[in-house]
Amino acid sequence: VSLTTDFGLRDPSAAICRGVVLGIAPEALVVDISHEVAKYQIRDAALLLWCALPYLPVGAHVAVVDPGVGTDRLPLAVETARGDVLLGPDNGILLPGAERLGGITRVHVLESHEYRLPVVSRTFHGRDLFAPAAAHVALGVPVDALGPAHDPNDLVQVGWPMPEIGQDELTASIVYVDTFGNLKLGAEAEDVQAAFGRLEPGTALDLEATIDGGPPKRFRARWAETFAQVADGEPLVYEDSYGRICLAINQAAAADRLGLAEDARLELRRA
Amino acid sequence: VSLTTDFGLRDPSAAICRGVVLGIAPEALVVDISHEVAKYQIRDAALLLWCALPYLPVGAHVAVVDPGVGTDRLPLAVETARGDVLLGPDNGILLPGAERLGGITRVHVLESHEYRLPVVSRTFHGRDLFAPAAAHVALGVPVDALGPAHDPNDLVQVGWPMPEIGQDELTASIVYVDTFGNLKLGAEAEDVQAAFGRLEPGTALDLEATIDGGPPKRFRARWAETFAQVADGEPLVYEDSYGRICLAINQAAAADRLGLAEDARLELRRA
Amino acid sequence: VSLTTDFGLRDPSAAICRGVVLGIAPEALVVDISHEVAKYQIRDAALLLWCALPYLPVGAHVAVVDPGVGTDRLPLAVETARGDVLLGPDNGILLPGAERLGGITRVHVLESHEYRLPVVSRTFHGRDLFAPAAAHVALGVPVDALGPAHDPNDLVQVGWPMPEIGQDELTASIVYVDTFGNLKLGAEAEDVQAAFGRLEPGTALDLEATIDGGPPKRFRARWAETFAQVADGEPLVYEDSYGRICLAINQAAAADRLGLAEDARLELRRA
Repeated sequence: VSLTTDFGLRDPSAAICRGVVLGIAPEALVVDISHEVAKYQIRDAALLLWCALPYLPVGAHVAVVDPGVGTDRLPLAVETARGDVLLGPDNGILLPGAERLGGITRVHVLESHEYRLPVVSRTFHGRDLFAPAAAHVALGVPVDALGPAHDPNDLVQVGWPMPEIGQDELTASIVYVDTFGNLKLGAEAEDVQAAFGRLEPGTALDLEATIDGGPPKRFRARWAETFAQVADGEPLVYEDSYGRICLAINQAAAADRLGLAEDARLELRRA
Repeated sequence: VSLTTDFGLRDPSAAICRGVVLGIAPEALVVDISHEVAKYQIRDAALLLWCALPYLPVGAHVAVVDPGVGTDRLPLAVETARGDVLLGPDNGILLPGAERLGGITRVHVLESHEYRLPVVSRTFHGRDLFAPAAAHVALGVPVDALGPAHDPNDLVQVGWPMPEIGQDELTASIVYVDTFGNLKLGAEAEDVQAAFGRLEPGTALDLEATIDGGPPKRFRARWAETFAQVADGEPLVYEDSYGRICLAINQAAAADRLGLAEDARLELRRA
Repeated sequence: VSLTTDFGLRDPSAAICRGVVLGIAPEALVVDISHEVAKYQIRDAALLLWCALPYLPVGAHVAVVDPGVGTDRLPLAVETARGDVLLGPDNGILLPGAERLGGITRVHVLESHEYRLPVVSRTFHGRDLFAPAAAHVALGVPVDALGPAHDPNDLVQVGWPMPEIGQDELTASIVYVDTFGNLKLGAEAEDVQAAFGRLEPGTALDLEATIDGGPPKRFRARWAETFAQVADGEPLVYEDSYGRICLAINQAAAADRLGLAEDARLELRRA
């Protein structure tokens, strides 16, 4: 069972979800992916799951960034081709991760009272709905016992900015800033290949960044395979260990140094 | 075995306590409730335990926010009616949690050398006293083997501000600000019931907040059952998922927006 | 298996390493020592291991603060006299911890493809090299199966400032600031003994701190065995629970109050 939330590690909520799982399924291995997702940032959590799930054992994965808790948004169990069950609200948080586990095989709505806590609050479904369901899945309860089937085509999608691929030109958005200050783009290695063909390490790229329609920032970076291929303090563009394209500065926080943040739009061109 | 401390996750102290437990009781399930309790804030930790313990399996629960470490304050093992043993210093940290687990059945002082580390430092009793005792409790050592009995009536209490219930009027203090910036009050659902009778969702309340005797801040909020019952950016007063009364702003941090913090005193009246 | 990194708890990297270990060795106990080591601070991580490892069960300990990832720095497995295997880059991170576990018995380079993930990235060796090797060690794979032997004398050392011991005078550097703001020095109890003989609690010490060649700061502190031996807000010098000499302020953050940070050089004299 894995847990991904924006609950914060100072508060007890994450531990409570873990406790609820272990109360129902004492033999379960519980792995915290992150409880420090930026508050209400559904897309951030979706990206973390996209990164992490392929490296976790097959299991039940709870994801709760849930600004709509207590409304009529559906609580879901999403089964993947790899055999995992993803549990969370119908706000798109589960979909990129499910895609990376082979895609969705079926979706059920968590309505069965048998697999919830006896009292379900209006503000903490992680504890009352999702964690207990995950624990029961870990014990072998099949996903269709959790509630009625739901059409995968009706799921709410998370807004995920797509890259634009041109001739020797690629435009993509910053979708995540990691704790090192590295900037992860909404583009993957195949998009760079499609735009530029094969890039040799050291190739200079001209970048133009726009934030919220403000004046563009221009700077140069080198395509690299490792951080150490550029000098300390120099910017690089590289394929990260998940196949995602990133902008970073060797030994420094690119977000701070370049004044960039999530949702900035970047144009990359050969210099 | 659960662990709640103000040790901070950057430092190794929390992991060391976990390691000590696992060295003695390798089969123990260890759950971190929080290691990010604000430094020296005994009441914060007591509140986290009050929230979390009912959702954790019966077990040994270590709580260390211990500004008096190395003085003659007593190291305690507190047994509860549910069957848990709470371990920590005699500064009140254990009492609200024990209350929620059915109340105290007996208290013993950790004096038995058999259930400590061989050398006990003057500055890290979490590692040297409380974690080893918890591990031995998890292995089945009864609480009266840990040291001499202590009168529960002699325990140090944590300062816990009580609500004042009036006619259509309730006064309570902010006792905790969570990581979302929600403000938790020293009042529970029954106090609201006693002051106002049953409140319909949408009922307007006038609030007056005083901090440290400064000029009062006045604002209006609505009683709600879910965040989404008020617009984004609007304040609400609600019963949280533990039965505690809270003040929040939908999709924002109320502490920042309203300029309020722990120990502010709030008067609530029907508008 | 323990994990110590600068990956940050917001990002998924730490959980991915845990997932990789559990995928290979589902029965392994995984303990996070810290994932909040200050970015790129090899010495900080080395100190955390020095503190923590003696209190953890014998096992495989992964440490990754690795600014040189992707270069030709070696990935190592270091076996200790206690029977542990420490895994991490050849940048000194493993050595103080190994010393505390009885010293190094043998060192091997992680070259065996059998004990890595199938694809090894250039930027995430924690996931692709170190975590899988640790999991295999936990399953019983001997350290010499991981790759060729390496001469322990050829290991890269971490820069660790040494104390200068004079007649009633000790000079040492701040090597770590903990989450309480306590300042840990590059000096141990035996260094104080060598400089001053036995110090009685309450003995006044004159301190002179120099940062980066700036003007010295002078202040007085008392030698103490517990924080409570000085008044709230007063500075003390004490032997911490690991035998290390520290400078702190009772109930406050000494780093902020005294304006000191890592690498400041401190002269201590009897007042």
